[in-house]
Amino acid sequence: MYTAPPPTEPVYEEEAATPVAAVGKRSDILKVSSRSRPSAVAGAIAGVVRESGRAEVQAIGAGATNQAVKAVAIARDYLAETGINAVCLPSFIDVVIDDEDRTALRLIVEPR
Amino acid sequence: MYTAPPPTEPVYEEEAATPVAAVGKRSDILKVSSRSRPSAVAGAIAGVVRESGRAEVQAIGAGATNQAVKAVAIARDYLAETGINAVCLPSFIDVVIDDEDRTALRLIVEPR
Repeated sequence: MYTAPPPTEPVYEEEAATPVAAVGKRSDILKVSSRSRPSAVAGAIAGVVRESGRAEVQAIGAGATNQAVKAVAIARDYLAETGINAVCLPSFIDVVIDDEDRTALRLIVEPR
Repeated sequence: MYTAPPPTEPVYEEEAATPVAAVGKRSDILKVSSRSRPSAVAGAIAGVVRESGRAEVQAIGAGATNQAVKAVAIARDYLAETGINAVCLPSFIDVVIDDEDRTALRLIVEPR
């Protein structure tokens, strides 16, 4: 079982100058920062996969990507407890933050 | 198409005090460091998946994990070119380096 996660994780905390809510579709994408707690993000991922069949995680930078992958590893354990064998599909995605082009890492999590 | 990758990547370069060949089954596991080139690792992953049906990537630390995930994202593109839809299964794994227990991130890459 996993404890109820916060509804959304903070948005790209590495971008200190960017207001938290400035980027993208908050409701659909779990944006992970280097300060995100992997277990909390994992709970959110597992919840979204159970409800929607698919979660999308985004991270920018090594610290954020590390937390995101750890979260996916934990979420796979959570989902396995209810018989869901989840896989991760990493890809690159271009995002614009403060009129600057950045490359984010996108991790799609869905049942195999 | 991908260019021929080096046969193995350097082992955990973040562990500067550890001899390169000291850890684990070199032939089977692609060990990624923070200085590994993602495109080279990606070529190795794609080659191993094509030959063996499954690649195992290991990383310790945020920098190494970041390079590893980027490599998997690129490898998915390489493999897609030949019709292989590869997925990634992240998990934690305990490893011993210089008599010290460390937690590595393991990324299994295999066809869906």
